[in-house]
Amino acid sequence: MATSSSLTLSQAILSASLPRHGSPSPLSLSLPSFSTPTPTLSTTSSLSSTSRRRGPPSRHLVRASAAVETLEKTTDVNLVEKSVNTIRFLAIDAVEKANSGHPGLPMGCAPMGHILYDEVMRYNPKNPYWFNRDRFVLSAGHGCMLQYALLHLAGYDAVKEEDLKQFRQWESSTPGHPENFETPGVEVTTGPLGQGIANAVGLALAEKHLAARFNKPDNEIVDHYTYVILGDGCNMEGISNEACSLAGHWGLGKLIAFYDDNHISIDGDTEIAFTENVDQRFEALGWHVIWVKNGNTGYDEIRAAIKEAKAVTDKPTMIKVTTTIGFGSPNKANSYSVHGAALGAKEVEATRSNLGWPYEPFHVPEDVKQHWSRHTPKGGALEAEWNAKFAAYEKKYPEDAAELKSIFTGELPAGWEKALPTYTPESPADATRNLSQQNLNALAKVLPGFLGGSADLASSNMTLMKMFGDFQKKTPEERNLRFGVREHGMGAICNGIALHSPGFIPYCATFFVFTDYMRGAMRISALSEAGVIYVMTHDSIGLGEDGPTHQPIEHLASFRAMPNIFMFRPADGNETAGAYKVAVLNRKTPSILALSRQKLPQLPGTSIDAVEKGGYIVSDNSTGNKPDVILVGTGSELEIATIAAEQLRKEGKAVRVVSLVSWELFEAQSAEYKERVFPADVTARVSIEAASTFGWEKFVGTKGKAIGIDRFGASAPAGKIYKEFGLTPEGVVAAAKSLC
Amino acid sequence: MATSSSLTLSQAILSASLPRHGSPSPLSLSLPSFSTPTPTLSTTSSLSSTSRRRGPPSRHLVRASAAVETLEKTTDVNLVEKSVNTIRFLAIDAVEKANSGHPGLPMGCAPMGHILYDEVMRYNPKNPYWFNRDRFVLSAGHGCMLQYALLHLAGYDAVKEEDLKQFRQWESSTPGHPENFETPGVEVTTGPLGQGIANAVGLALAEKHLAARFNKPDNEIVDHYTYVILGDGCNMEGISNEACSLAGHWGLGKLIAFYDDNHISIDGDTEIAFTENVDQRFEALGWHVIWVKNGNTGYDEIRAAIKEAKAVTDKPTMIKVTTTIGFGSPNKANSYSVHGAALGAKEVEATRSNLGWPYEPFHVPEDVKQHWSRHTPKGGALEAEWNAKFAAYEKKYPEDAAELKSIFTGELPAGWEKALPTYTPESPADATRNLSQQNLNALAKVLPGFLGGSADLASSNMTLMKMFGDFQKKTPEERNLRFGVREHGMGAICNGIALHSPGFIPYCATFFVFTDYMRGAMRISALSEAGVIYVMTHDSIGLGEDGPTHQPIEHLASFRAMPNIFMFRPADGNETAGAYKVAVLNRKTPSILALSRQKLPQLPGTSIDAVEKGGYIVSDNSTGNKPDVILVGTGSELEIATIAAEQLRKEGKAVRVVSLVSWELFEAQSAEYKERVFPADVTARVSIEAASTFGWEKFVGTKGKAIGIDRFGASAPAGKIYKEFGLTPEGVVAAAKSLC
Repeated sequence: MATSSSLTLSQAILSASLPRHGSPSPLSLSLPSFSTPTPTLSTTSSLSSTSRRRGPPSRHLVRASAAVETLEKTTDVNLVEKSVNTIRFLAIDAVEKANSGHPGLPMGCAPMGHILYDEVMRYNPKNPYWFNRDRFVLSAGHGCMLQYALLHLAGYDAVKEEDLKQFRQWESSTPGHPENFETPGVEVTTGPLGQGIANAVGLALAEKHLAARFNKPDNEIVDHYTYVILGDGCNMEGISNEACSLAGHWGLGKLIAFYDDNHISIDGDTEIAFTENVDQRFEALGWHVIWVKNGNTGYDEIRAAIKEAKAVTDKPTMIKVTTTIGFGSPNKANSYSVHGAALGAKEVEATRSNLGWPYEPFHVPEDVKQHWSRHTPKGGALEAEWNAKFAAYEKKYPEDAAELKSIFTGELPAGWEKALPTYTPESPADATRNLSQQNLNALAKVLPGFLGGSADLASSNMTLMKMFGDFQKKTPEERNLRFGVREHGMGAICNGIALHSPGFIPYCATFFVFTDYMRGAMRISALSEAGVIYVMTHDSIGLGEDGPTHQPIEHLASFRAMPNIFMFRPADGNETAGAYKVAVLNRKTPSILALSRQKLPQLPGTSIDAVEKGGYIVSDNSTGNKPDVILVGTGSELEIATIAAEQLRKEGKAVRVVSLVSWELFEAQSAEYKERVFPADVTARVSIEAASTFGWEKFVGTKGKAIGIDRFGASAPAGKIYKEFGLTPEGVVAAAKSLC
Repeated sequence: MATSSSLTLSQAILSASLPRHGSPSPLSLSLPSFSTPTPTLSTTSSLSSTSRRRGPPSRHLVRASAAVETLEKTTDVNLVEKSVNTIRFLAIDAVEKANSGHPGLPMGCAPMGHILYDEVMRYNPKNPYWFNRDRFVLSAGHGCMLQYALLHLAGYDAVKEEDLKQFRQWESSTPGHPENFETPGVEVTTGPLGQGIANAVGLALAEKHLAARFNKPDNEIVDHYTYVILGDGCNMEGISNEACSLAGHWGLGKLIAFYDDNHISIDGDTEIAFTENVDQRFEALGWHVIWVKNGNTGYDEIRAAIKEAKAVTDKPTMIKVTTTIGFGSPNKANSYSVHGAALGAKEVEATRSNLGWPYEPFHVPEDVKQHWSRHTPKGGALEAEWNAKFAAYEKKYPEDAAELKSIFTGELPAGWEKALPTYTPESPADATRNLSQQNLNALAKVLPGFLGGSADLASSNMTLMKMFGDFQKKTPEERNLRFGVREHGMGAICNGIALHSPGFIPYCATFFVFTDYMRGAMRISALSEAGVIYVMTHDSIGLGEDGPTHQPIEHLASFRAMPNIFMFRPADGNETAGAYKVAVLNRKTPSILALSRQKLPQLPGTSIDAVEKGGYIVSDNSTGNKPDVILVGTGSELEIATIAAEQLRKEGKAVRVVSLVSWELFEAQSAEYKERVFPADVTARVSIEAASTFGWEKFVGTKGKAIGIDRFGASAPAGKIYKEFGLTPEGVVAAAKSLC
């Protein structure tokens, strides 16, 4: 590609984001027409930046005409149609070749997809990770061939023609649903419905926060939109209502959602289960709502809606785009049969004929290819321009620049871990939820990308960062997030934040038992390598009177079985700090911290560093790696194991106490280390954990005993329940004696 | 109590449900006043029944004035106030004594609670299980002292004064949140927010279904309301939006929800996270919405709202009742501090003084006691009257009566299990999801209370009952439920259906991986002993191309760890039928069936009855209970184990193949039986399951090998993934040979 032409193009692009008609009314409800098809040229970007700003009082609520115009409208309607049909047929052909997939959505959404990627969005196909790119989320992830076709046309290296031909095949970059960890250019992992729109709320929150925190009157270094396409399915899911309620509450004006209103879901017409008034609901949630009645061919309608959405800066916008699922298929359009199966050779031919598409499978017509080819130089220019802008920013605002850089590179500030608190056995006994708060507050001071909050349990989860205020519509520079009672939305929003920039370290909190409400999002954290920290307090029957609805039993086991997530159950201050250390360091593995409501002593033998091993010897009076018995505990029960060990030692036994704070980390240790902790010859082993014993056979073996709770809990003071359930030092001593 | 007086009372009560002012407009928005405080008397109930009906075309949409009036307004305002304050102080005193609990909601909601239980609801305190009772659900379950106080005043045996004094104590009938299995009079188990309102949707659905199916022009044998109190927290949860969208869609006109609009949640004012327009959202969901501005003392406003709600028969109604949390507490009312902690002795005294309450703790003033005492005879009379009505119904409509009786007694029709299909090895190979559909359709014919559906995956989950149509607003007598893409709401609605009457056997379906979306409700099924059947298809990487977002890995383990739930993974037709048999028989334990998308052969050695053991020997060529190796499989991998066994036997090995279709059932077997299946001496054991190996140590021991998947799945054709992941007969053979 020619470098000189890219420079020229760059200028043209930059000009397109300039205000042309003065500041439009941010609340205008009219549908403006495109009276100026060719963008006026301008030479400097700093002018553009300054002219975008208003005075500080309104800066978070009302943003002026930044990028109010779409990037570049293509006036050649035939070319647009051809490009749109290219997208449709790439999807049709890929699904047909795989004989698996979902052609309906791409065929219906190709027009909005085309306009977004060809005319509206700012991105650099050669660097999918460019920080200031616009984000796009396909919340209706089953329609991923739409996104793959768009990434292909736009020039992303991950989706070449051969990749399209490998759609849904082993180790391809075009898996069955969009996966950020497989396909650079895909921002988040979607497919489970409703996750994507909630991720998008997180992405838009991240932008709003960073913009408020780092932008300067003379340098708007953070400035991008978040676009999302969601379908009927997403809108039925509770998670989307949770996240969208927050988006409205927070006034995420740069979040623009396209609702693919096609009236078809897998079971048929949405009339059978989805007759609510979606527009009215979104208005109730504080969104601006626009209806594009002709999403199939109404290109100017779509463009006008985007323009209007951008003009509304204090609310997120939902553009309801009425489309025909499977548009172009003469016999299957507008029916569920086109949703999730290949069209079949005959219908593919009929569709080719119907849409006048003479090309062979996977063919991109030359003029379409040529048209899209400009995005590579354009994208490079956009990034180069931004880099120059950042260089200026760095020069003028070095401290802010360092923080922002840490966030967009993911490089943690040197020595951050020194901020972690340490404890000695003399430190006061405390609940690990309180110790967690000490850690959160320590980390908040040293980690620029650290932010988070609770689902309406901040004062129970102990998650407030005392040096910050609340992230709210008018104070988006703050870092305490208030999620309300919306666990599922909270988790998915945190995934969006984590995947916005590698240096973001979002945490979120609720009672451990309510991971049941957010497990869908937590699994996507693990799968999509989003290093969210889950601060889960009230981690056992130790919470007492609230009873079995609030007492986790099976939850530790359920997460220990989940791939790529650390399940920590720290026993005291040092283990809590150690868990945070591992959690912060592992940006591609989420962590769950199960924390106590009740006070726990600071135990001798624990340490921050030991946590990294997952399991370690806390105390031992044996010699030659041959204890009479090994007592294993986690969290609040490590104290019980310790007390039992003292008792047994008084009676002359050689007793080892092991903390298994994270099974995953312990599993990752060498065989030698594991043998040092659990010698194969020592089969007298007793575990104690106030939770299901499921899975403990791995450590206590066939000859050991696992003390736990294989029933639901009960409502009573914690001490009483522990006693009634036999979770006592006496119980451990008795079990140990029966084995050695 | 005097029987004669109860008869008189009965007549008075029955008359109160008669229409007095003709048919009110069902969509009237005005707030009618109570112009007729004393009910007109009438002598027959059949008259009442007939006059309630309109012609068939509109019968499901518009119900006439059945019970449009509240039961009995108390005109003595002072007595009402005194009763309301009794409720407040019972709550205050119980929380104070326990030094744990939530006084704020009961103090704020006492007025609506009083009107509901004293004036509106029809129930029999001496038989909390009377079929035709009105149902009440406290969705904001933390405020359970409201319900306990009401049950106490109303005369329920489970909540006597000593029980109130044992609030939140070990083995009391007044646990920390309402639990149906602990407290007769409590319908469902709430506490986890949003569950209750969704349960209530299920209860109201059950009533609407039964009424449409069994009521006759001359005998409306099914006729009750479902009332629910929910708070801000419930309304923030996505599950409530899901369930309420369905309630609107289904037009559940006899569902009346009170939204305790107190503007306070745990983190403080709802302004910090909940600023959406709730009224508008509910209108968008198809609800009738009424606002009671003074919920603290506006008794007539509350009464009028209920009257209006009953007049709107084609929509559920949300009555937003603006209250003051902790009403009456001079220093803590209207703040989060009164939400979830005892007031403290000083503030209790201040509140006593403020509300003019001279009594000692737990005291119910004599006139209040006297006033409420009428509910025992009244309730008995209501039930007696209904029993007479049912006797007439049974005489005239014996077949319908038998079906209805089966539903309200829970007694299954004799010989129902003969309907289950059986299979031989010659039966065609098929996916267990298809075999499941054969079972569902067989059971639908013989079980009157069998109904259910899918979360928009009926054609993938194979859950349609072919002899029935869809339960819809205008066809509520049908039994196929269409939940839309709302898994969490679906589960909780099924809990409500299951707990409406013991003979209801609801099933619901989605992909197994999306149990992550509904786990909150599934856990409540298990805890609250609601025998829901979860039909979970696409149970492993065997689903293929949809990839890791859709492929369960840790889910089997996660449910095996959960108390009181059966996790079945049937291998073929017989095991599928066996799983259904156990599921239907166990009405207090929910069941999950993990079913394959892919075809599986009918294996020799499987049987319906064997499934009841949970684990059993499928094939064996060893003698003396001493096989060289035991191969264990579940579901689709039992075939792989079988093929591997054939191979090993050809090589001269004595090989046992064990199916572990339900670990819970196997665990419940005798030690002898378990030893017969897994002799302790045989340590050469290989398990194969296309899922996490977590927990398999229990069966393969420390010396065996577990073949499984301890990572996320992948997008590719199923066969390819199985091969790449080593889930093959060759893999099993190799593992076996390494052990024996």
